Amino acid sequence: MNPSKEALTFLLAPVAGGMERMRTILAAQIADASPAVRDMTDHVARFQGKQLRGALVLLTGEATGNSTDEHAAVAAIVELIHLATLVHDDILDGAEVRRRVACVNQRWDNQVAVLLGDFLYARAFALSTQLSSRLCSRLLAETTRTLCVGEIEQSTRRYDFEMGQETYEAIAAAKTASLYAAACELGARYPGGNDELGARMARAGRNLGLAFQIIDDCLDLTGEQETVGKSVGTDVEDGKITLPVLFAYREADERVRAAVRDAYTRPGLADRRSALRAACDLSHGLERAQARASELVEEARSEIARLPESDARRSLDAAVTFVLARNQ
Amino acid sequence: MNPSKEALTFLLAPVAGGMERMRTILAAQIADASPAVRDMTDHVARFQGKQLRGALVLLTGEATGNSTDEHAAVAAIVELIHLATLVHDDILDGAEVRRRVACVNQRWDNQVAVLLGDFLYARAFALSTQLSSRLCSRLLAETTRTLCVGEIEQSTRRYDFEMGQETYEAIAAAKTASLYAAACELGARYPGGNDELGARMARAGRNLGLAFQIIDDCLDLTGEQETVGKSVGTDVEDGKITLPVLFAYREADERVRAAVRDAYTRPGLADRRSALRAACDLSHGLERAQARASELVEEARSEIARLPESDARRSLDAAVTFVLARNQ
Repeated sequence: MNPSKEALTFLLAPVAGGMERMRTILAAQIADASPAVRDMTDHVARFQGKQLRGALVLLTGEATGNSTDEHAAVAAIVELIHLATLVHDDILDGAEVRRRVACVNQRWDNQVAVLLGDFLYARAFALSTQLSSRLCSRLLAETTRTLCVGEIEQSTRRYDFEMGQETYEAIAAAKTASLYAAACELGARYPGGNDELGARMARAGRNLGLAFQIIDDCLDLTGEQETVGKSVGTDVEDGKITLPVLFAYREADERVRAAVRDAYTRPGLADRRSALRAACDLSHGLERAQARASELVEEARSEIARLPESDARRSLDAAVTFVLARNQ
Repeated sequence: MNPSKEALTFLLAPVAGGMERMRTILAAQIADASPAVRDMTDHVARFQGKQLRGALVLLTGEATGNSTDEHAAVAAIVELIHLATLVHDDILDGAEVRRRVACVNQRWDNQVAVLLGDFLYARAFALSTQLSSRLCSRLLAETTRTLCVGEIEQSTRRYDFEMGQETYEAIAAAKTASLYAAACELGARYPGGNDELGARMARAGRNLGLAFQIIDDCLDLTGEQETVGKSVGTDVEDGKITLPVLFAYREADERVRAAVRDAYTRPGLADRRSALRAACDLSHGLERAQARASELVEEARSEIARLPESDARRSLDAAVTFVLARNQ
């Protein structure tokens, strides 16, 4: 059973008004007076998913008794930054361009995606400078830097089968979990309240984001495109060695290891994910990765359990659990 | 005679101390604790040119009697944003990738350039949120949006030979001149002073930036790579119809127009710029474009002439004239 978007909407009932305001702000920010930019909003709209990061700002705000009139705008800014990263993830490298667009005239797609992502980042920062407090600008500028550094670090670790779990988690914390942490911290602290509660919620957000990334990495190995809602097997294609593979590789003998490396690197291989699944038994690595994700979710939940009892706290707890449920 | 970088350094003597502080701040911002990012600083360093935009912040500050301890940081932020745009300009489209990297393994260059540009934008915004006034964050976030919209508009106008001078200038104003305008406005106004003087200096900066773009476009048609210091003929390759070509096209008869269009579009043409120069007489279009640049520079100079007499004003005037001299 895969929890549907409708189920998530139900979970978010305590912040339904805030989500609606967030979506209104987002729509206004994504639109632009320039017709050329307006033509691209469809392109961006198709990336809009569950808006979990924005929801976390609102839920954490409610659950910590820290909701302000500006929380919806903060949530919209967090979502804009997330959208910008998704648009930039779409940039193709040379190899992919050669592989995918041989017959299609996608001549300008890369530049357009870069500019559109930059536009979304700029919108996010411009909106943040209009808020009454500078906390949002400061925290999210720093978080954006961390996201980029995480992605850059990841690109240098491609095909690194000797990478330890710590390195994997440090990269995932930077490239993914930092925005979850910022969303929860801003929810709890914006416009500049309780530092200690902010730090605790940031930690909960970080653990949740890390769990999200691990589950995402598992789904890339096991999921089907129709269920997951995006291309699968791309990590294997791109040489990204994820936690389940690291676990499986570490336990394998040299013959199996060679077969795994071969699945990632042999030139011209059409379906690397199938080759990887044939090369080794991933089930134990997947189990261990999922266990690690559960552990992280439990850490986040125990932080949330310290908050006073409320509808928002229950929703926050359910939203956190939802991240794990994606894989069932 | 092409004014050398040394001549520009001499011109900048009144703000030499500020330029030095700006460079120190820039170096610290471009560096990062992450080894993977540090490895890329060489890549960024090679883009650092005349730092004219940063110099304009400092010169305008001095010339308007508005220098603060934070002007060097503002100048560094403006340069970081400019660097980010240059890095993102390096993103190759599919066609170029196929053309240029057929034999070279540049598999990750596009992604790395995107992330590095994002990192520089994030650094710029993070630094701006540390300043005492929010004016810099606000103005530069808005300017970054304008830069992106200008580039996007330009990409929709490729191969548009019917585009009017007004459209060309509106695009150049957005994609290039807006950062010059912001640099001069921040110099004159930061941390939040005289709006009217700021608006006048913004106008001077805008005219200067527009002139800069027009001269750049002329050099792309006439210059040699060794002299100009970057690839030439790329506008013709990329289908960008610049002011001198618009002027030449408008005056040509249909036979010549067809030959011009052919130079831009015939598949497989190896040297489009030579084909364009053979297809029509560009000299009159170039003269008219240069006359327009001179006019814009004179407008900027007349604004500068209204400032009180000082070394900084003389340098600002000389720096503005320098933009035209690039082409002599």
